[in-house]
Amino acid sequence: MVEDSSVDAAPAHMIAPDEALLLVGERTSPRPIQRVRLEAACGLQLAQDVRTEHDFPSFARAMMDGYAVRVSDAGQTVRVVGEVPAGASSAEVVSEGVCLEIMTGAVCPEGTEAVVPKEVAHREGDLVTLPKNLELGRHIAPPGSECRAGSVVLKRGDTMTPLAVAVVASLGRQEVEVFPRPTAAVITTGAELVSVDSELAPGQIYDSNGPMLVALLDEFRIEDRTYRHVVDQREAILEALEEAAEKDIILLSGGVSAGNYDLVPDCLAEYGATVVFHKVRQKPGKPLLFATKGEQLLFGLPGNPLACHQCFHRYAAAAIRGIQGKTAEPLQSVGVLAGEVVPKSGRTHFVPALAAQEESHWVLSPLPSVSSADIFSTSQANCYIEVPPGKQPFVAGKSLRFTWIGGAPWAN
Amino acid sequence: MVEDSSVDAAPAHMIAPDEALLLVGERTSPRPIQRVRLEAACGLQLAQDVRTEHDFPSFARAMMDGYAVRVSDAGQTVRVVGEVPAGASSAEVVSEGVCLEIMTGAVCPEGTEAVVPKEVAHREGDLVTLPKNLELGRHIAPPGSECRAGSVVLKRGDTMTPLAVAVVASLGRQEVEVFPRPTAAVITTGAELVSVDSELAPGQIYDSNGPMLVALLDEFRIEDRTYRHVVDQREAILEALEEAAEKDIILLSGGVSAGNYDLVPDCLAEYGATVVFHKVRQKPGKPLLFATKGEQLLFGLPGNPLACHQCFHRYAAAAIRGIQGKTAEPLQSVGVLAGEVVPKSGRTHFVPALAAQEESHWVLSPLPSVSSADIFSTSQANCYIEVPPGKQPFVAGKSLRFTWIGGAPWAN
Repeated sequence: MVEDSSVDAAPAHMIAPDEALLLVGERTSPRPIQRVRLEAACGLQLAQDVRTEHDFPSFARAMMDGYAVRVSDAGQTVRVVGEVPAGASSAEVVSEGVCLEIMTGAVCPEGTEAVVPKEVAHREGDLVTLPKNLELGRHIAPPGSECRAGSVVLKRGDTMTPLAVAVVASLGRQEVEVFPRPTAAVITTGAELVSVDSELAPGQIYDSNGPMLVALLDEFRIEDRTYRHVVDQREAILEALEEAAEKDIILLSGGVSAGNYDLVPDCLAEYGATVVFHKVRQKPGKPLLFATKGEQLLFGLPGNPLACHQCFHRYAAAAIRGIQGKTAEPLQSVGVLAGEVVPKSGRTHFVPALAAQEESHWVLSPLPSVSSADIFSTSQANCYIEVPPGKQPFVAGKSLRFTWIGGAPWAN
Repeated sequence: MVEDSSVDAAPAHMIAPDEALLLVGERTSPRPIQRVRLEAACGLQLAQDVRTEHDFPSFARAMMDGYAVRVSDAGQTVRVVGEVPAGASSAEVVSEGVCLEIMTGAVCPEGTEAVVPKEVAHREGDLVTLPKNLELGRHIAPPGSECRAGSVVLKRGDTMTPLAVAVVASLGRQEVEVFPRPTAAVITTGAELVSVDSELAPGQIYDSNGPMLVALLDEFRIEDRTYRHVVDQREAILEALEEAAEKDIILLSGGVSAGNYDLVPDCLAEYGATVVFHKVRQKPGKPLLFATKGEQLLFGLPGNPLACHQCFHRYAAAAIRGIQGKTAEPLQSVGVLAGEVVPKSGRTHFVPALAAQEESHWVLSPLPSVSSADIFSTSQANCYIEVPPGKQPFVAGKSLRFTWIGGAPWAN
């Protein structure tokens, strides 16, 4: 195949993918902190330290179902004079020769030195025979043993995992301060695109980037989002940009290449945005444009659906993470190639692949595709292999970096 | 510390964690297939094959912005007689000495043998000089080159990734058949628990398992869910079970141990559920109970919040995945210990830890915790290390299996 070397080579004005990612990170900052209810905080980063006001537990808590006893009664048969259920306290006192039956979670009554689990005590009527060894404090969580009053139990930047939700709930609080998710607008351009509810005229295709970008935003749980398709006319594009002026992120697709109808760069200038970079030394995704207007971040994604996906995955996702106070860069792994990948001269080649685990390492199977726009062969990819620019193929067995698409295979 | 060997040892009626997981998988089956709109299908498994009705592309498509030419005109200067924008077709014909300007995505006009990218052609007025080498078919995607009419582009069982959404959208379809998510009910029991909007009386604690289980269901995007707390009374528990009779999964917490108020097993029997297993040789989570009633799956999770979390993570999550047509078992990785872990005699010890990547392997840092109920020290854990039963500690450098909590660190 004849290579158009002047197309594949890297003109001076293009920047490297790593530099592009750094520039996106630099222009990204968290939005104002929000106070939200616990159920809305899940998955977000805390914008505050969470401190306890009280010791936890606040009382000496029984850790087993059994008997509250004195250790000097080890090996003895003692009288059970009452029962302490969880959630209640007892006026009865534990003393030599006298114990109380107690439930997990209950307040240890005055005089308790140990809790003897039901399974290791022998009960007959209101008498119980205790084991020969009793250790002071056994199966009792003393006040403050899990957490002292005034301790920081969650730090600013910690993730509100389900366990963190449990921590905050256990303190009796219903709200926390978090870094909120960004809001976003999707604007697809292209005269050849029609929406899925229309009939195709000759030369037309269905808009797949719009539904795909909405699905990608949905993976980040961005609910405040809009989506519209506009024709390749300056007024229509500008109107859509103005309509999205309040969004944190605008994702445009199409209209960023060299064609006569590629109006996005001009429209962004007219909208008042400043181009940070346009064109990146990568395949697919060369035409990518990134601009800002104040704190608003604008991505001019390529119209080629696979390039659009790759650029969202690598750059827009970094911005979304950064706005939420997370590390912007995608977490990279290293895997071993199961098949050959061919680099591009002068451009980083991002190859959709399947990463599978083999004991302690990842095996990367590149997905065969018929073109750099082929979404049919690549829809089940779970990673992009990062193939550095060069001439010689990377053969099976060689190690290369990769980034996971969406979550890892075990993500929910 | 004196060990209560009869408590820590494994009575015969307890089953191993691997056997318990198998039993959950065996009792789990997908629910009836649903036809949903694309935007609701994201992340679900397809219950149908998706076939194309037409070739894709349906026309010879230009892959670059440039000129539609004859290959015999290589090295020649030819006349540009018109322009083909994307989304339109042209009545003009390409012939020797005559070309058409063409945009990416446009229909190649009759007679087109190659598309010459703008960057490698030299244009002056309506004349353009072409490069010396022109390859037949270059930068043209012929009809059906990405996908032939009648091909299966997505298979039953494939995941509806954002790229898969793009595939279905590009076919002009708005709906697909998927395996739906389960519906669920959370019922927390325990007289000592009060909800976060109440004042604590002596011996009471706030219910943290309820909000945590709701957050865990939220990670699986289970929106059809209910949550209520009931006191430790047979009638109250039964009423809550009856109320949840239509749910696919019921998650109870508390009331499954040996205490006098542990009414869950009896209530499940009265409700008509069959216990599959009760008590597992693991720590935390020994009291776990699993029952079924018809297709309904019921988990009696321990009241200890960390045990409740671990049992959801390992068993309830497997059921949720299985109901959605996914692999039930959690994907296991192997990592290298960065610190010592201490096994339990006769029970598998699941230790909350932080897994971090070092090039091609995972380093596991066990989180220090003061008790097996400690959620304060463990809320940022991203995995559970699986420590097999035994007497000797596993030291740093030793490899052990682990499972990710929720998603991996790079999940959205």
